Amino acid sequence: MNTRPTPLRTAVMSALALVAPLNLLAQTAPAVPAVSTAQTAPAAPAVSLIGRATPDIASLPPGPQKALVEYGKQLTERTFAHIGPEAANQKLRYAGNNLACVSCHQGSAAKPFAMPWIGVSASFPQYRAREDDISTVEERVNGCMERSMNGKPLPLNSREMKAFTTYIAFLSQGVPVGATVQGAATVQSKMPNRRADVTAGAAVYAAKCAVCHGTDGLGQRVGKAGDGEGYTFPPLWGPDSFNTGAGMNRLAMATRFVKHNMPLGASHDATQLSDDEAYDVSAFMVSQPRPVKANLELDFPARWNKPVDAAFPPYLLGTADQHKFGPFPPLAEKQKQMAEQLKTQAAAERATGAKR
Amino acid sequence: MNTRPTPLRTAVMSALALVAPLNLLAQTAPAVPAVSTAQTAPAAPAVSLIGRATPDIASLPPGPQKALVEYGKQLTERTFAHIGPEAANQKLRYAGNNLACVSCHQGSAAKPFAMPWIGVSASFPQYRAREDDISTVEERVNGCMERSMNGKPLPLNSREMKAFTTYIAFLSQGVPVGATVQGAATVQSKMPNRRADVTAGAAVYAAKCAVCHGTDGLGQRVGKAGDGEGYTFPPLWGPDSFNTGAGMNRLAMATRFVKHNMPLGASHDATQLSDDEAYDVSAFMVSQPRPVKANLELDFPARWNKPVDAAFPPYLLGTADQHKFGPFPPLAEKQKQMAEQLKTQAAAERATGAKR
Repeated sequence: MNTRPTPLRTAVMSALALVAPLNLLAQTAPAVPAVSTAQTAPAAPAVSLIGRATPDIASLPPGPQKALVEYGKQLTERTFAHIGPEAANQKLRYAGNNLACVSCHQGSAAKPFAMPWIGVSASFPQYRAREDDISTVEERVNGCMERSMNGKPLPLNSREMKAFTTYIAFLSQGVPVGATVQGAATVQSKMPNRRADVTAGAAVYAAKCAVCHGTDGLGQRVGKAGDGEGYTFPPLWGPDSFNTGAGMNRLAMATRFVKHNMPLGASHDATQLSDDEAYDVSAFMVSQPRPVKANLELDFPARWNKPVDAAFPPYLLGTADQHKFGPFPPLAEKQKQMAEQLKTQAAAERATGAKR
Repeated sequence: MNTRPTPLRTAVMSALALVAPLNLLAQTAPAVPAVSTAQTAPAAPAVSLIGRATPDIASLPPGPQKALVEYGKQLTERTFAHIGPEAANQKLRYAGNNLACVSCHQGSAAKPFAMPWIGVSASFPQYRAREDDISTVEERVNGCMERSMNGKPLPLNSREMKAFTTYIAFLSQGVPVGATVQGAATVQSKMPNRRADVTAGAAVYAAKCAVCHGTDGLGQRVGKAGDGEGYTFPPLWGPDSFNTGAGMNRLAMATRFVKHNMPLGASHDATQLSDDEAYDVSAFMVSQPRPVKANLELDFPARWNKPVDAAFPPYLLGTADQHKFGPFPPLAEKQKQMAEQLKTQAAAERATGAKR
């Protein structure tokens, strides 16, 4: 038995359209696997990360597990120092920029709605649209390594990969496998139904972001280039930032993150930017130059569930400009229709198959 | 930072003695990771597998996840046909014998106290004594591949490995990460405090086991050798059975499995053999010839927590015969003392270190 592409595959993929969330962010962060709503055995309860205590490493007994969890936390917080392009151990230079995981995954990857890792162990392996396949948590980590970190994948059997997955499992303690996690990913807010205003975004940036990230957007280094000490505030574009394949280079994704996590100190229940400000300033960010990820046309091979804000070809629903800067609601509506059509088609094919 | 052997490592390992369960089976099946009792954040509840519904694959919506879960179940039930030494696809001949996972993991790996896989996703990565290190669920699967299946490890990025971990995650739905699972592993019964009686065991075997497994212990094949159809009843020894490194080749481990799962139809709440019968018949089984695993001296590098029934050198606590056939309680007592001693020593070393 082989689950690789078959005629049936196309059919089941389109059937999936009904169960896969069709929002713009469906494939960017710990999503609830389809299984959680569909199984008859003990249903996984919902878990909320809001106000939930984060596991404390200090409470672990000394031993290999504690050591590995600590290493995982180090890799998460000081990624640049351990696996960045300036890391002391040249063999471990897997990341291509000097960002840290916590540049996006705030609060040591435990902050609600800042793509937290709490519960991630409980949601993998899961279907991922980017690969149109089931992915393991290791593959998800490497998705970041090749995009947000603009680097190379970590070997699956490396100490560093194991440290990441062990830290993620530590953070996930108590979350039932398959649970719906309130606080996962980002707040699924709606996008303004208009093309984003990059000029207005530039003004927001100058007023609220430049003080930390720099007027040139290149961040503030700790020490000097080459010392592997990373940034106090990360670069948002330019050669040492995430590449064009990163989720943060997608406008709707970035808007949701920025709205509920920026400027520093903002959170889902204490936002500082209006919806319009978040949308426009994010558009300003994604309009800037950054490293180009090769072979992006291989991402989201099942085009019906490619996020509408994935601004790289092929473009199935609108122009390149609309996929990059919106408006997105009309694209989402078109995508929904496409999925419905595929679903009807698949059902018809199944019915024909059943008659034979 | 590196968590590989350091002077500190020895110290923390011995400190672990207090938290690691010192029973004979501590390292054979989904154990509760040390973290679950030690963290201050949301404690993982206990989950019981007894009477718990097993997730039903039929309830999954069609799609890649369902297909992969189904493939994982196929690999589990018909291991021989897919990855055995007679598998149609020669490239996939990873297992070295024609057993199936379900030869031991009964009930499609969902039966309580028959080393079920339910909850396994929620308990890895975990500390494993066999490696004296943190292991992933993939490494645990490969532990079986190299021992119980007397074969080669599956590549970590193979479709087959992903199918196994996806099936395991499917079975684990609803189990909180780090939870204590009642029904995991085997019933932790005590061993008779005597050397096992192989002759008495041979009589039990003839009376209660030979009808299925054969008087020669070589099982009953489906069809003929070479057709990749496996066994109706698996061989318990001989060239097509598990090797000397398998957990089932350890007397206490085997006794616990046999007592609560053999003959066919037995369960933890409906046993068919007395404690003595289970112990002796298991001794008869482990006294028989089987494939020899190379390099077993590399297993359990931290000798203080090598299971006392791991009957291969080095022998720290007793003779080779006693490690193979018991009596085990005196060995367990000696092991406990060794662990206490190491713990005291480590505490003293830490105290000295603190003074410096």
